[in-house]
Amino acid sequence: MSRVWNFSAGPAALPLPVLERAQRELLDWNGSGASVMEQSHRGKRFIAMAAQVEADLRELMNIPSDYAVLFEQGGATQHFAQIPMNLAGEGDTADYIVTGHWSEKAASEAATYVGVNIAANSKSENYLRMPPREWWKLNPGAAYVHIATNETIHGVEFQDAPDVGSVPLVADMSSDILSCPIDVSRFGLIYAGAQKNIGPSGLVLIIIRRDLLERPVRPMARIFRYAEHAANDSMLNTPNTWGWYLAGLTFEWLKERGGLSAMAEENRKKSSALYAAIDNSGGFYSNPIDTPVRSRMNVPFTLHDSALDAAFLQESEAAGLMALKGHKAIGGMRASLYNAVPYEAVEALIAFMRDFSQRHG
Amino acid sequence: MSRVWNFSAGPAALPLPVLERAQRELLDWNGSGASVMEQSHRGKRFIAMAAQVEADLRELMNIPSDYAVLFEQGGATQHFAQIPMNLAGEGDTADYIVTGHWSEKAASEAATYVGVNIAANSKSENYLRMPPREWWKLNPGAAYVHIATNETIHGVEFQDAPDVGSVPLVADMSSDILSCPIDVSRFGLIYAGAQKNIGPSGLVLIIIRRDLLERPVRPMARIFRYAEHAANDSMLNTPNTWGWYLAGLTFEWLKERGGLSAMAEENRKKSSALYAAIDNSGGFYSNPIDTPVRSRMNVPFTLHDSALDAAFLQESEAAGLMALKGHKAIGGMRASLYNAVPYEAVEALIAFMRDFSQRHG
Repeated sequence: MSRVWNFSAGPAALPLPVLERAQRELLDWNGSGASVMEQSHRGKRFIAMAAQVEADLRELMNIPSDYAVLFEQGGATQHFAQIPMNLAGEGDTADYIVTGHWSEKAASEAATYVGVNIAANSKSENYLRMPPREWWKLNPGAAYVHIATNETIHGVEFQDAPDVGSVPLVADMSSDILSCPIDVSRFGLIYAGAQKNIGPSGLVLIIIRRDLLERPVRPMARIFRYAEHAANDSMLNTPNTWGWYLAGLTFEWLKERGGLSAMAEENRKKSSALYAAIDNSGGFYSNPIDTPVRSRMNVPFTLHDSALDAAFLQESEAAGLMALKGHKAIGGMRASLYNAVPYEAVEALIAFMRDFSQRHG
Repeated sequence: MSRVWNFSAGPAALPLPVLERAQRELLDWNGSGASVMEQSHRGKRFIAMAAQVEADLRELMNIPSDYAVLFEQGGATQHFAQIPMNLAGEGDTADYIVTGHWSEKAASEAATYVGVNIAANSKSENYLRMPPREWWKLNPGAAYVHIATNETIHGVEFQDAPDVGSVPLVADMSSDILSCPIDVSRFGLIYAGAQKNIGPSGLVLIIIRRDLLERPVRPMARIFRYAEHAANDSMLNTPNTWGWYLAGLTFEWLKERGGLSAMAEENRKKSSALYAAIDNSGGFYSNPIDTPVRSRMNVPFTLHDSALDAAFLQESEAAGLMALKGHKAIGGMRASLYNAVPYEAVEALIAFMRDFSQRHG
């Protein structure tokens, strides 16, 4: 069949020009006579590409030179554990701001390695709003403060990096990295699984302020130490070479599109249109999130009558709209609007939703 | 340019039919209207594929049902650490058989998590032969015995699973898995980075006897526990979906080729031809490894005059023979002859070597 509009929360849509280029180059990359997957990561061609990918990311995100960029594996979930292993010593505590499923899981996976202080938690509010900054009970002696900038399941997003004083701010940006310009210097460590806004799954991007690499750590195998990965240009062992390559194609595509300011504009336009369609549906559709903190990336919504869910999913799929089923934790629907999802896809979704509500209203 | 013959040690050559199929399906996989990389790992299509890939591997390797198969990340190097984390308790020791660079590294990375007993070591012999089984100083109370069945850099290979009694035998098979039939029941745990005989880098295959999943372990994040991965069908978090898919295409290709017995025959024929060419070169080329334990997968060799190395590499590359440079640890040349390297490639290499020796002899 022809290409569908893909609203998957992750692994998610990739830019069509990126896929087309990867397809063209699959058997013979960069004049080598072999696939990029068949190249030694120690070879000149691959090393040159890897360095260019990092340079493109640094340009896109305006990453200061005192930050290292790592191309890692294991998913963000592995780094829920590796971050305290690398940033906290024995007996240290860290502050976690819990604003949805993923930040809650980050705190729970960290607990083996650091004393977890839940400094704020909106669970009792069903994660429908952000805990106000003035309510956070931060510990000035914490090893770090952890947030998830965007909650993929619950659909809430920080609009700005919160001020946490001199304690390093650690942010899981898996689902909104590269969606708008940010000030990297506000963060101690940024990490993101690739499978939403970067590339295929199996790659994790880590941006870490270099002084944090110097923290004394507990005994661990070298492979778990960020400082070792940084010292070896993320080639301490064989990296995910295909993921690194695809990330590079995505970064090139973002540069051609005008960089992160252009993406911010496009993402605002897409999410505003969809939220407006939901809010103006006369109650047929609804999104319960506090308006100022609605996610630009993941839009969960429900139908006024959940008995219509199965028909909605079946008909939307038949209309070429893929992966609208909500996460099982909250049910309903979810449309993920990452960078690779074009405005046309959102228009098609809105048109379908309007038609569906008219037929079933 | 056209496709070259690729002798890379890893990431290594992939079967051409696998690459061609991946290329055809890149934009629209399995009638979904999206790439396999754009599918949720929780979606029906991906889950069905993942299960089929495991079933194909079980059929190819004749894996008994009391073994779990895991599709992991982090490279074999990460599992150098995770294996003792999962198989050894506090105060336990494990026996390591050191037969080259990789088994030495496995022992060194394990040392944070288990008391490492080097039960045999051929380093003083420059790893040119295997330490005879009767010399191994095994500890009957060891948590496990670790070997690397094939040493990718040094070019020595176990011809059979050694008898280690009732202690579980753990084997790094990164560079010779799927190259011939083996008796899985001789092993407690088999692991292999994908980037040699399975698929792209960023995927690690683990085959573990289920009783070993029950061992009491030290406190650790769930993501490091093999038992958690087994209980969640390797989808505890987002797996490397592209790697899993490519592995599946490779397994299908292996089945079409006649399975592992056919590959064993082909691999024996390829390596025998290359070793014969080296041994019959009148000393122009040489491979110093004890003949019975020469690797069928990685053939290191030197030129009688290392001043010719640069010319050999330059001319071989010009002749469409890629990645023959030896590992920096031992210098010289290395030809890796994994499953995806056809006999024709070896014939082309031998013809080139003969011609080169005539011109420079």
